[in-house]
Amino acid sequence: MRAGEITPRMLMGPGPSDVHPRVLAAMSQPTIGHLDPQFLAVINDIRDMLQQVFQTKNELTLAVSGTGSAGMETCVVNLIEPGDKMLVCINGVFGQRMRDVAERAGAEVTAVERPWGEVFTADEISSAIRDSGPFKVVGIVQAETSTGAAQPIAPISEAVHQSGALLLVDTVTSLAGMEVDVDGWQIDACYSGTQKCLSCPPGLAPVTFSPAAVKAIDARKAKVQSWYLDMTMVRAYWGSERLYHHTAPINMNYALHEALRIVLEEGLEARWQRHALHHRALKAGLEAIGIRYLADPDHQLPMLNAVSAPEGVDEAEARKRLLNDFGIEIGAGLGQFKGKAWRIGLMGESAAERHVTSVLKALETVLVEKGILEETGKAVAAAKEVYES
Amino acid sequence: MRAGEITPRMLMGPGPSDVHPRVLAAMSQPTIGHLDPQFLAVINDIRDMLQQVFQTKNELTLAVSGTGSAGMETCVVNLIEPGDKMLVCINGVFGQRMRDVAERAGAEVTAVERPWGEVFTADEISSAIRDSGPFKVVGIVQAETSTGAAQPIAPISEAVHQSGALLLVDTVTSLAGMEVDVDGWQIDACYSGTQKCLSCPPGLAPVTFSPAAVKAIDARKAKVQSWYLDMTMVRAYWGSERLYHHTAPINMNYALHEALRIVLEEGLEARWQRHALHHRALKAGLEAIGIRYLADPDHQLPMLNAVSAPEGVDEAEARKRLLNDFGIEIGAGLGQFKGKAWRIGLMGESAAERHVTSVLKALETVLVEKGILEETGKAVAAAKEVYES
Repeated sequence: MRAGEITPRMLMGPGPSDVHPRVLAAMSQPTIGHLDPQFLAVINDIRDMLQQVFQTKNELTLAVSGTGSAGMETCVVNLIEPGDKMLVCINGVFGQRMRDVAERAGAEVTAVERPWGEVFTADEISSAIRDSGPFKVVGIVQAETSTGAAQPIAPISEAVHQSGALLLVDTVTSLAGMEVDVDGWQIDACYSGTQKCLSCPPGLAPVTFSPAAVKAIDARKAKVQSWYLDMTMVRAYWGSERLYHHTAPINMNYALHEALRIVLEEGLEARWQRHALHHRALKAGLEAIGIRYLADPDHQLPMLNAVSAPEGVDEAEARKRLLNDFGIEIGAGLGQFKGKAWRIGLMGESAAERHVTSVLKALETVLVEKGILEETGKAVAAAKEVYES
Repeated sequence: MRAGEITPRMLMGPGPSDVHPRVLAAMSQPTIGHLDPQFLAVINDIRDMLQQVFQTKNELTLAVSGTGSAGMETCVVNLIEPGDKMLVCINGVFGQRMRDVAERAGAEVTAVERPWGEVFTADEISSAIRDSGPFKVVGIVQAETSTGAAQPIAPISEAVHQSGALLLVDTVTSLAGMEVDVDGWQIDACYSGTQKCLSCPPGLAPVTFSPAAVKAIDARKAKVQSWYLDMTMVRAYWGSERLYHHTAPINMNYALHEALRIVLEEGLEARWQRHALHHRALKAGLEAIGIRYLADPDHQLPMLNAVSAPEGVDEAEARKRLLNDFGIEIGAGLGQFKGKAWRIGLMGESAAERHVTSVLKALETVLVEKGILEETGKAVAAAKEVYES
């Protein structure tokens, strides 16, 4: 593990994404205590910066000491008591996961489903609520990392709140890569991960809870089933009481602190536009060589490009070739798309022209070798056209 | 968060402990993917090294993606199904925490209690089992970080196994600082944390499960209540299937890898002896100035020295003085000992002569100022005598 033991990669899968050297340097600052005033200043800053990135004034905003999936579990187990009714919207792996987590928390789950790659309309949610509601919580994924589909949240929110339910949104892949407006969209509970568009190593899960969600947590009759993820205790450490709960992952918080600083230096709008630009360039390049997207063309995520692997290509072999010979990691298909798809990430530091042209060149080379393409060059040229326009 | 923004401390609380620069350097290696063959080699090494440190051949040995308390929750929720009977031995905060976690998992908990600072005899466990058993699981803390008491495990183990129960042991504070012999003592489930005697930043929880524990997990009727901590899925990632579950905290695993390498370079026996030596020196120094230990003299932990704050000293003010003017962090009392005790850690890199003499000098200075001691020097002299003998 000495410097140089790990060969760096160009990270273009579904996360982790490339991490800025400033973040790696921050993470290797000396470890100090979780009650040291220096560290408490770090987590205060993290809360303030997370509020900016989530676009919220929610006081209960913090980084859970686990990865993005722990963020999902945190939101679900704090809002759900055994027997509570929850509507889960499923159009990919992460909606499925949310149902599983909710059932384990004792929720009585109703699932509303859409084909993978498509998104939900407000009408569909409203009619599910009418048919099977009312629900305490409605859970939905903004950026479905298994399909590359981008779910509009604002229209859904109205339908959910009219019914009196709380809105729970997965922003693991979207946060800091496209608009997430927690207060504007009246999201009640929201979680993310550090290793996607925040470009921080995996290990923490930013979460935020609205005053209505906090009220629901305060009104619980049963203890939260997870001691580790119990917000009624964790918030007393992040809040002014500073009550010891568990030992915070000190150096991971240093890393998140620096990653958030970089996000805010760039500016949220500029960062979203950067992700959108490189997505357009990548898409132009891929389409120029006949590679098709899996998600509905009107609802494609910028940072996660899920595409069909072309006929005649062993998708796993091609990924291995990219990793070993080009140093580029792209992701495999998940769930229904296993063995059929590639997932190309453009997240945070990995949303860059160098990444787009490198992966296009590498894919062209592989496809020419397989006799699927006649010559290389088309894809990169199409991407360049986007950059020059 | 640039280099130099965090003022280093001498970490002598109940964890985190000082981290070796090699570990910090390892942690700042470039982030790569969780399915990258380079990273899979890292976690294979971690499993092998954890088996050595836990002294076990258990195949299900890995680092949970959360801190020590997540390790506790992992062991409990995987072994317990709603309605299962569990005996929890309570003589401090971490036994109390185990009861809380078990109750949240739906266990029917019987608690057996000892005064804080004391430990359990095998007879006490046997009679609790006779009176209220049989139990599926018996949980006990080897190193009670709130009191500084060291619980002998081997004699307890016999009593537990004779009754057919599984033995669950908390080694958060003990692992790599004193003997932990998972196979020799027939421990069925065991968890630890990285930030104590392993001297790695907090963020991961080493766990190990015996074949009998794995059999109990495989025989479950109900799903594990925590999706995030569900070993039936996590083991399929750490095992040869390499099934994606959640994104592992890549850089934290780099750090643990290097920390384990350092532990094994020193050797387990040598490391235990080093902890014992510095404990003896610290204890001689503290006792020379009239500071008394809270735990039973026959059962004192080497790495966690819980002592009464002397009459006439505001313990919180003294800790603040140590931190701000001497750069030394020591811990406060917890639970029953809140406001009355100090907890002085000698863990991993912090188990060193420099640490022992520094903390003794600082405490002497504070006590002289408060008029409790007449002059400085006695404590350090007593410690030196131990080193020279």
